[in-house]
Amino acid sequence: MVFVHLYLGNVLALLLFVHYSNGDESSDPGPQRRAQGPGPAPTLGPLTRLEGIKVGHERKVQLVADRDHFIRTLSLKPLLFEIPGFLSDEECRLIIHLAQMKGLQRSQILPTEEYEEAMGTMQVSQLDLFRLLDQNRDGRLQLREVLAQTRLGNGRWMTPENIQEMYSAIKADPDGDGVLSLQEFSDMDLRDFHKYMRSHEAASSELVRNSHHTWLYQGEGAHHIMRAIRQRVLRLTRLSPEIVELSEPLQVVRYGEGGHYHAHVDSGPVYPETICSHTKLVANESVPFETSCRYMTVLFYLNNVTGGGETVFPVADNRTYDEMSLIQDDVDLRDTRRHCDKGNLRVKPQQGTAVFWYNYLPDGQGWVGDVDDYSLHGGCLVTSGTKWIANNWINVDPSRARQALFQQEMARLAREGGTDSQPEWALDRAYRDARVEL
Amino acid sequence: MVFVHLYLGNVLALLLFVHYSNGDESSDPGPQRRAQGPGPAPTLGPLTRLEGIKVGHERKVQLVADRDHFIRTLSLKPLLFEIPGFLSDEECRLIIHLAQMKGLQRSQILPTEEYEEAMGTMQVSQLDLFRLLDQNRDGRLQLREVLAQTRLGNGRWMTPENIQEMYSAIKADPDGDGVLSLQEFSDMDLRDFHKYMRSHEAASSELVRNSHHTWLYQGEGAHHIMRAIRQRVLRLTRLSPEIVELSEPLQVVRYGEGGHYHAHVDSGPVYPETICSHTKLVANESVPFETSCRYMTVLFYLNNVTGGGETVFPVADNRTYDEMSLIQDDVDLRDTRRHCDKGNLRVKPQQGTAVFWYNYLPDGQGWVGDVDDYSLHGGCLVTSGTKWIANNWINVDPSRARQALFQQEMARLAREGGTDSQPEWALDRAYRDARVEL
Repeated sequence: MVFVHLYLGNVLALLLFVHYSNGDESSDPGPQRRAQGPGPAPTLGPLTRLEGIKVGHERKVQLVADRDHFIRTLSLKPLLFEIPGFLSDEECRLIIHLAQMKGLQRSQILPTEEYEEAMGTMQVSQLDLFRLLDQNRDGRLQLREVLAQTRLGNGRWMTPENIQEMYSAIKADPDGDGVLSLQEFSDMDLRDFHKYMRSHEAASSELVRNSHHTWLYQGEGAHHIMRAIRQRVLRLTRLSPEIVELSEPLQVVRYGEGGHYHAHVDSGPVYPETICSHTKLVANESVPFETSCRYMTVLFYLNNVTGGGETVFPVADNRTYDEMSLIQDDVDLRDTRRHCDKGNLRVKPQQGTAVFWYNYLPDGQGWVGDVDDYSLHGGCLVTSGTKWIANNWINVDPSRARQALFQQEMARLAREGGTDSQPEWALDRAYRDARVEL
Repeated sequence: MVFVHLYLGNVLALLLFVHYSNGDESSDPGPQRRAQGPGPAPTLGPLTRLEGIKVGHERKVQLVADRDHFIRTLSLKPLLFEIPGFLSDEECRLIIHLAQMKGLQRSQILPTEEYEEAMGTMQVSQLDLFRLLDQNRDGRLQLREVLAQTRLGNGRWMTPENIQEMYSAIKADPDGDGVLSLQEFSDMDLRDFHKYMRSHEAASSELVRNSHHTWLYQGEGAHHIMRAIRQRVLRLTRLSPEIVELSEPLQVVRYGEGGHYHAHVDSGPVYPETICSHTKLVANESVPFETSCRYMTVLFYLNNVTGGGETVFPVADNRTYDEMSLIQDDVDLRDTRRHCDKGNLRVKPQQGTAVFWYNYLPDGQGWVGDVDDYSLHGGCLVTSGTKWIANNWINVDPSRARQALFQQEMARLAREGGTDSQPEWALDRAYRDARVEL
C-alpha cells in the first residue's frame, strides 16, 4: 500500500515536474537494479568531473594545437565554468550557416491534449492533487504553489496575473484573494480549467520557450569542423570517447528579438519510472516516462547580442535551495522576461565563448546522483538583435548498468551494420523526430 | 621594485594576518619551487578529499569492527562533515581523564612585546600601514577596517567599543566619529597606541581565546585507545598513514563557564615567506615566518554542554566571501561572545560526535591550494557548565616537495635512531614547547 502510494506520488510528480527527494529509497528497486539486457553487464569507470576549486579560479588547458585556453570557474553550485575563445569566429559563423541551410523549427508549439488525456486516465482524485500542490501543507493553495507546477500551464508560462485571470474566468476563487482553500479547490471542475486553457491561444512570448532550433550531426562523416568541435569537447570534458560520441547532436538555437527561455533544468528527475531518451533502446519498454539525461551542458555563444539574451542562473551558489523562496507570489525568479536582473549569476553572450556545467550531483561512487537543483538556468529576453547559441549536451544514464549496456549495444550495431546503421546515424534519426521538450 | 613592494606587502600581511589573494603569482617563485633538501625529492600521490555531494547527504562507513557510522555533509564551503558516535562515551571520558592527569595550561596568555619589536625593526612607514589597513581605499579608516586586523589587538580581542575608547585615550580621533582620516592617522604616535595596550591588562574574557588545553601523544607506544583513535581517523580521512602519523598530537581543550574562542582559521596563509611548523625540520631556516599547516581539522566533542559552546561557522556556504561584510562597524560576526546566533551554521556539542573539515581548497593537481576562507569558525560562549573538546589536526605542507622531504627524513630518523628518536616523539617534543598560537 505504501509502495502504491509512493508510486502514484512519483508518477504525479513526474507529470507535474515536481522536484523532491524521496527519503524512502529502500522501498523501490531503483533504476540501477532494474536495467536488464543481454549478456553480462560491463562496468564503466568513474565519470570525470572537473574541480571547481573556487569562484574565479582559472586553469590553463591545451585543447587545440595552436593556442592555450583558460577555464574560469563561475560557480560551484552548479559546477559551472566559462572558456573564452572555445570556438573561433569562423567556426561560429559556419555553425550558424549550417543551421540556416538545414532550416530551423519553432522550439515549442502548444502541445496537444496529451496531458489532459493523461490526467484523465490517471484517475487521480482531486484531493490527492490538492495535497501534492499544497507544498507548505497549510491546507490552502497559494499562487506560488500553483506557479511552481509549470506543467499545469501545459506549455504556457504562468504568471501570477494569468492564474488570477483564470480563477476569475472559471469562478474558482470567489473571495478573490488569490488563495484556494481545499473547499474552493474541490468545488472547481478541472474540466473548466482545461477548457479555459484551450480557449486562450498563447502568443509565443507567453510560452516557456520562445526560439527556433535545429540539430546538427557531429558523428563520423560530418563536416570536419563539426568533428573537430566534438573532439575539442571530448578533451574539455575528459570523458570517455564512447560517452561523447553517443551523445545528442549539436542543437543550434536562434532567439529573435523578444525571444526567451524561462529558467529550467536540462535533465529530468531521477525516478525508477523514467528512462533516458538516449538509452531507451536498451531499456525496459514498460517504463512509462522518458526524459533527457544530460550529464553536462556545453553551451556555445555563436554571436554577440545587441541587447539582452544573457544566460541566467537564478540560484547559483545560493546558500540553500528552496523552490518556494525562488517563486514568490509576486516575483518568480525563473521568469526570464521579467526578473533576470534579480538572478544570482548572468553570463553575457560573447561570440566564441563556451560555458559548461554539470546537471547532476555526483553519487559518491564515481557516477551520476541526483539532478542538481542549482543548475536551474534560462535565456533572458533578447531586447535587441538576434541571439545564436548551440548546445552540446553530454548524455549519461543515471543507471550505470544501463549506460554500459547501451554503449555495448551501440558498439555491436556499429560492428554488424553498414554505414547506414552507425550509432550516430541511429541517434540522429531518433533526435530528428524528437518531440519538443519543455 | 614591484617584487620588493609585493614582498613587503606579504610580510606586513602576515604580521597582520590579512587574508588576500595575490593575483600576480608569476612574480614570486612560490613555496613549491623553493623547497630544497638532500637527494631527489620523492613524489606524493594525490590527497584524498571526501566528496560533499550536497548539504544533508549521508553515507555509511565502516570505521570499527562492531558498528557502522554515518557521515553527514554539513556544508560545502567549507567542506564540512559530522559523524555521530565517532568516539564512545568511555573513550571521551578516558581522553578527559588523561588530559587532567597531564595537566592543562591556559590556551592564551597576553604575549610579550615581540610584536612591537617586530613592528619597530620592520621600518614600515605609517603611510604604508595606513594603505594596508584602508581596505576599501577610501582614504579613511573605518572601525571595521581596524577590527579586521586582529593582530593589532596583540592577543586582545578588539570590539568597536574598545577601539573607540583607545582612540579617545590617545586622542587619535579628535572629531570622535570613529573614522580616522589619513591626517588623523599620521598625527597619531604608534608608541602611544602600544603604551595604551600595555597599560590595560586584559581579562581572560577579553582575549581571542579563553580556554585551557594540553596535548596527548598518539604515536607508537601511546595508550591503546589513543592509538585506536588515530587509526580510526586514518580510516575516516583515507589519507596516507605517513601523513596521519606525522601529524600533531591530540589537543584536548577545556572551556570553563564564560569560555570562548573567537572565529579564526586553523591554518596560516600560504606565502613564500612561511614555513610549516610540522616540516620546519627540512625547511630553509632563513624563511621568516612559521605557521600551522593543517589540511584537516577533526574535532571531537567529549561531553554534552549544559549551555552554549556551539561551534560556529559564520560564513558557511555563503554565496560569496567578503571579509568586510563579515565585519561591520557595529556587528562583527567573528565575535563568538556576542554574535554566534547570527552565524550561518552552528554545531551543538554532543558527546562522541566528531565534526571534520578541510582548511585548504584543492589546488587542482591533487594537492593543497589556498586556505579556504569559508573555514572560519569559532567556539561560542559557554553560558553554563564546562565544555571539553579535542582537536586532531592533520598536517600537510602546501609545498608537496617539502612534505615529501619531511616524510623521507622522518622515516630515515626512525630507521637510524632508537626508540627515543622515533618521529612521533620528536614531534611531540616540538609541540610540547610550542608557543601559544592565536
